[in-house]
Amino acid sequence: MTTDARRPIPPERYLDRLRACREEVAARGFAALLIGVGPDLRYLTGFVGEPMERITLLVVPSEGPVSFVVPRLEATKAGATPVAASGAARVVPFGESDDASALVARLVASAGSGAAGSEAAGSEAPIGLSDRLWAMHVLQMQAALPGRRFASASTIMRDLREVKDADEVRLLALAAAAADRTIDAISAGPLVGRTEADVSREIRRRLIDEGHDLADFAIVGSGPNGASPHHDASERVIGPGEPIVLDIGGTLAGYLSDTTRTIWVSGPNGIVPEPEFVSVYDLVREAQAQATAAVRPGVAAEDVDAIARAVIAASGYGDFFTHRVGHGIGLEVHEDPYMVAGNATVLRPGMAFSVEPGIYLSGRWGVRLENIVMCVRDGAKVLNHSSLDLRVVRG
Amino acid sequence: MTTDARRPIPPERYLDRLRACREEVAARGFAALLIGVGPDLRYLTGFVGEPMERITLLVVPSEGPVSFVVPRLEATKAGATPVAASGAARVVPFGESDDASALVARLVASAGSGAAGSEAAGSEAPIGLSDRLWAMHVLQMQAALPGRRFASASTIMRDLREVKDADEVRLLALAAAAADRTIDAISAGPLVGRTEADVSREIRRRLIDEGHDLADFAIVGSGPNGASPHHDASERVIGPGEPIVLDIGGTLAGYLSDTTRTIWVSGPNGIVPEPEFVSVYDLVREAQAQATAAVRPGVAAEDVDAIARAVIAASGYGDFFTHRVGHGIGLEVHEDPYMVAGNATVLRPGMAFSVEPGIYLSGRWGVRLENIVMCVRDGAKVLNHSSLDLRVVRG
Repeated sequence: MTTDARRPIPPERYLDRLRACREEVAARGFAALLIGVGPDLRYLTGFVGEPMERITLLVVPSEGPVSFVVPRLEATKAGATPVAASGAARVVPFGESDDASALVARLVASAGSGAAGSEAAGSEAPIGLSDRLWAMHVLQMQAALPGRRFASASTIMRDLREVKDADEVRLLALAAAAADRTIDAISAGPLVGRTEADVSREIRRRLIDEGHDLADFAIVGSGPNGASPHHDASERVIGPGEPIVLDIGGTLAGYLSDTTRTIWVSGPNGIVPEPEFVSVYDLVREAQAQATAAVRPGVAAEDVDAIARAVIAASGYGDFFTHRVGHGIGLEVHEDPYMVAGNATVLRPGMAFSVEPGIYLSGRWGVRLENIVMCVRDGAKVLNHSSLDLRVVRG
Repeated sequence: MTTDARRPIPPERYLDRLRACREEVAARGFAALLIGVGPDLRYLTGFVGEPMERITLLVVPSEGPVSFVVPRLEATKAGATPVAASGAARVVPFGESDDASALVARLVASAGSGAAGSEAAGSEAPIGLSDRLWAMHVLQMQAALPGRRFASASTIMRDLREVKDADEVRLLALAAAAADRTIDAISAGPLVGRTEADVSREIRRRLIDEGHDLADFAIVGSGPNGASPHHDASERVIGPGEPIVLDIGGTLAGYLSDTTRTIWVSGPNGIVPEPEFVSVYDLVREAQAQATAAVRPGVAAEDVDAIARAVIAASGYGDFFTHRVGHGIGLEVHEDPYMVAGNATVLRPGMAFSVEPGIYLSGRWGVRLENIVMCVRDGAKVLNHSSLDLRVVRG
């Protein structure tokens, strides 16, 4: 059911985005962008799908018409997108035996030729490829456009996408709340005696039940498995007297949730956490709190990382915090801006990203806490609201 | 829960696959293959994951050690794969601020140099890229290895993957059975008065409940929406007296299901299908039956397509069967071999693919029926068993 809160991005927004994109293609001297199925295409057109062996490409030239090259059997669907329905892009379908890359090459070449008065177009100007375009299609396009230079389209797409508008924030908040409810339900148990995979399956079900369209990931890292930050979920049976890292997320109307809580399973005999676990937990929580408190417009992304790192390093656990403190989130679970050493990107209001410090003790356990945080005019707004207190689960 | 039937691919199989791959890299004159996260990597190593901005690459050179280049936080997980645990590949981790493409370039260059006695290696030999490697990583690798030639790794990977072994067949059959049960449950209703999106959500839940790890797609095309072959699911409310195309699939232990049934919703007043719908349904069913009956070793993939097409064309609906009749299936929902005009690939025992003719009448409705079919020694084995009789749903 579509409630008002989960209403999709309004159609006219896509026209604004495509217009802004075209301006940047010309301004930055690209001949054209080739945007394959994925988050960039969804952002620009509203087209939802999975990449496949049949290529689908939005061709955004520096001048001339925008073409939406699609397999014929996707033509109806492409034609229904706001940009096609309004005439801002024309649908160019191809058949099952047609050479789609030759078709795209002709569109790009015609965009580049006869471009009197445009310094952007021309055979020297690079062709921008969306980050997630498959290698099979990159190689096809490079073969079809020999001698042309190819570059990342993300120099343009990143700037467009990393500041969220009010509708995007609304959907991110809705997804975050759905993930929070899932964390709360799982933390109520039962957990002892179940495999990680079984708990992971329950999480995926609940992510959907709580309103996600897709359950993208449900990491369950019990005991020593929690020490591998990207452990998924195994056949290991959860026992009493050990922690579990739960890192979960899904997609709601295109927008991602991503939250992590580390809980303690005491079991029916109430095995209390070892003192080092409790102190590490408190340290990670403090690092997260300080990094979050530092978020405000004008701060560099790398500084958010550095603040969390300094808190953890000061207690001697610096070597065990093995990853960046966060990543942007929106139509992708990981996107710009990244909160990582070396990223001088300055935070702007509307940027959304994770703040997720962690400490991993190999062979023992790990602790990670993750919230999605927005940069807002006067500081930070945290989208997740599930408790950060250490939860102790008996069953 | 892992029952015996859903036990994973045995660890030693990955070593056999990697060995076979290496032999082909040398035999076909590649310098190396670069295999990113995705089905090729899962096939060769057992590594399960999603591609992300941090590159993960299995570097399979024509000679010298196989390297598994991974972000440091994936090192534990990569080290646990059968190929790494056995020493057949060495894990090469990199840190959050390291230049991973430079690291990979050094590995490729050292594989190519000092290759006395190997005609395969050397700076003229192409570097093979897995089909799904992201453009951002392709561009990074091309920048890090200037002047080198890049080609598709699929010339090798396709031959390895398109013939399934007994364990793969077992998992494909299990996934097909889970999808069949989901179709049966949905076809029992209720459907009238619900949105397509709501039904789609129920399908995704049931796909998981029936044993899938992921619910990948749940197309619900009611009435005119069924005439768009790749329609997803909309807010359209299902009414009495119209057909619905249900095209659903998920992932079970890595292997995909994909089945389509078209059902008729009569509603409580029992609105019977219009005669043309019934005759089109029977025609699609007959086309599927004849194409399936033609499957046997030695037959060309394009002939399977042609047979279904001839049946439909003979009744005057040829222009409305707008897509190939099928696609291979395994670790990907669409993979080689494709049953399409122009594909002379000869069927071999162990190949698995869809047979899914369809007829689409724009503005009215569509009919598609899809089974997964195996080529076996003496003909075809159909993995889906849900009924092909036209189901009429009252509620």
